[in-house]
Amino acid sequence: MNNGFCTMLDNVRQHSPLIHNITNYVTVNDVANVLLAIGASPIMSDDIGEVSEITTICSGLCINIGTLNHITIPSMKEAAGTAARLGHPLLLDPVGAGASRLRTKTAEELLRTAHFTAVRGNISEIRAVFAGQSGTRGVDAAAVDAVTDENLPKAEAFAMECAKRSGCIIAVTGAIDLVADPAACYVIRNGRPEMSRITGTGCQLSALMTAFLAANPTQMLSAAAAAVSLMGLAGETAWARMQPGDGNSTYRNRIIDAVCHMTGADLEKGAKYEIHTR
Amino acid sequence: MNNGFCTMLDNVRQHSPLIHNITNYVTVNDVANVLLAIGASPIMSDDIGEVSEITTICSGLCINIGTLNHITIPSMKEAAGTAARLGHPLLLDPVGAGASRLRTKTAEELLRTAHFTAVRGNISEIRAVFAGQSGTRGVDAAAVDAVTDENLPKAEAFAMECAKRSGCIIAVTGAIDLVADPAACYVIRNGRPEMSRITGTGCQLSALMTAFLAANPTQMLSAAAAAVSLMGLAGETAWARMQPGDGNSTYRNRIIDAVCHMTGADLEKGAKYEIHTR
Amino acid sequence: MNNGFCTMLDNVRQHSPLIHNITNYVTVNDVANVLLAIGASPIMSDDIGEVSEITTICSGLCINIGTLNHITIPSMKEAAGTAARLGHPLLLDPVGAGASRLRTKTAEELLRTAHFTAVRGNISEIRAVFAGQSGTRGVDAAAVDAVTDENLPKAEAFAMECAKRSGCIIAVTGAIDLVADPAACYVIRNGRPEMSRITGTGCQLSALMTAFLAANPTQMLSAAAAAVSLMGLAGETAWARMQPGDGNSTYRNRIIDAVCHMTGADLEKGAKYEIHTR
Repeated sequence: MNNGFCTMLDNVRQHSPLIHNITNYVTVNDVANVLLAIGASPIMSDDIGEVSEITTICSGLCINIGTLNHITIPSMKEAAGTAARLGHPLLLDPVGAGASRLRTKTAEELLRTAHFTAVRGNISEIRAVFAGQSGTRGVDAAAVDAVTDENLPKAEAFAMECAKRSGCIIAVTGAIDLVADPAACYVIRNGRPEMSRITGTGCQLSALMTAFLAANPTQMLSAAAAAVSLMGLAGETAWARMQPGDGNSTYRNRIIDAVCHMTGADLEKGAKYEIHTR
Repeated sequence: MNNGFCTMLDNVRQHSPLIHNITNYVTVNDVANVLLAIGASPIMSDDIGEVSEITTICSGLCINIGTLNHITIPSMKEAAGTAARLGHPLLLDPVGAGASRLRTKTAEELLRTAHFTAVRGNISEIRAVFAGQSGTRGVDAAAVDAVTDENLPKAEAFAMECAKRSGCIIAVTGAIDLVADPAACYVIRNGRPEMSRITGTGCQLSALMTAFLAANPTQMLSAAAAAVSLMGLAGETAWARMQPGDGNSTYRNRIIDAVCHMTGADLEKGAKYEIHTR
Repeated sequence: MNNGFCTMLDNVRQHSPLIHNITNYVTVNDVANVLLAIGASPIMSDDIGEVSEITTICSGLCINIGTLNHITIPSMKEAAGTAARLGHPLLLDPVGAGASRLRTKTAEELLRTAHFTAVRGNISEIRAVFAGQSGTRGVDAAAVDAVTDENLPKAEAFAMECAKRSGCIIAVTGAIDLVADPAACYVIRNGRPEMSRITGTGCQLSALMTAFLAANPTQMLSAAAAAVSLMGLAGETAWARMQPGDGNSTYRNRIIDAVCHMTGADLEKGAKYEIHTR
């Protein structure tokens, strides 16, 4: 199967995009190392006095609200505005949206401040961000607590509807991953359940996805899907290397190691997905 | 020996308590991963605009002042007040108390703001926090620089006196660990000296202890002791897996791995302690 | 060859200097663990309400502007002033200088606020910091994008000129490392190119260098050079332990492990450098 994922990964390694991350302090080190593992370059910067300038020299911006605060929220908005004006890929990871009004509101405000290329979260985060928007109410999102084979059609419809209303690529990640635009939805089955026992695999994926978008500007939907598939596949490869006694800390290291060694051919061969069109 | 530690660990894994951490940015990733390793769920949040709401949806709050600042200190107080009102287990890790007036004062103010379930620190931190309180002056704490077999009775008396005055469970960790309430003191001898060559084993223990308190609300003292014993035992198990050339960075990973694999039966069998009553 | 590096490392392990770090949240955990690996003790503190007091109880201060913000910049200045007044070794790591005006300006202001013992960065950071200073303009720094065998004389002249104008030891690290004062320049050839695929090896080196300066106050230039050589040698030792499938995350752990096991004799034997005098 030639799905183009091979070329997309090669493009990341070849162009080595510089990615600006305004991100949480919990998983920031892993985010930096996974960007280096994929061949991209990370820069972390969140002060209002420099974010716009930093974003300008980068090729993409990843905003992660995992440890947002009233000092960094204005920086996120400022940087998002600049990235959008410059036409840079711009991704939102609404960590914990729904857990506090501040998180939900900040995610909503960011989406109103600038046009985001993509939003990536788990089903409850995506629902929290888009539930308040008129139009998504009609979609039966509340019925979808986790994407399963049973509710897959409903979940796909929800993701595609969110994409349509927002104009963003919507990535809903979990046991089954969805990557949707208004016209098509990738259903991706890479990954291991044990990845949820490590903090930061979602944050890492958001950063990788930003790098894939930056290096593949003409094929945004499949670039986003390639990143999702790659992260899951890295989780599978890493799991195969686990020894007796190894736990979630070693698994974390091996996942980043697997990203480091992943070739375009590996990704092409290991990606497990279907594309459904509306 | 049936000490109940087995059941307590099983309770953590079964109830998977969500733990709110206002913690330092040095060891925060390890804190998140060790909570996942024990089967709990971490959430990190320190903005005044959301901490109370976040604490409300959690089952316990761990406050660690390792990189405190004037933005996060009010958040700590606000969250502590909410957790105490809701009856959530509330733990203070007074990292570096005694090293600056800001740290000592903040720890003291937090203890006045709300009733903490437990305080965990090394001997000098515990002394710094409680030395200023009338009543503990009479206890010869100054003579105890590290808990040893020689000064054990004095150290136990100090820990129990601190517990009595403050109404908190007091955990003093070091080569010998003490976990005291006013009536009893666990003397725990798990652990390895090499654990002090890794940053964050204390921070990780504080988070684990909060999870144990949250999952075992009717047996707080022994739940705290179980967490201390478990962390030390994980250090022993991890040390046994070290290969030539492995150093403190690998040891860090292996300790979290050991927590990940620890069963109730392992803990029951490996725990090394006595209980002394007043 | 007896270069004294052996004794200098022994001094670090023997005196175990407490190092105050005002550093970025990306690599802070690795910085703490590498300081513990070398036998020093780390403390991280960046609040204006305590930095001066914390610096006072330490033996050296490492300021890293990797995630600077308007809250921590005044803390950096305050702590730098105190460290300089007390005669403590004081090091600046101007991460990202040149990438934003805020970073360049902050680095310049810090150097005007206090006398720094040493500045460590890559060639573009060092150029950004010193390019604006009169006197370095005459040096053809713009021609040096990376230190190579071809441009080595020019690069050395640039480093020594920066040292002369600023009164600081200047460490320019890359494929070839330079450590210069106005009269001499160490040219160091330890290290592996793969180290650039890990975030934080530069930050770790800055902290190690501060520990070496603190433990060897009478031989500052060679102490700084010893730290640079040690970090590179740790990268070589760690690389030799890499297994098939290991990537940048495992390499990160093994480098810190290698620092943990490095003896004075290892360093003496493995150090690869020349000293050029003006």
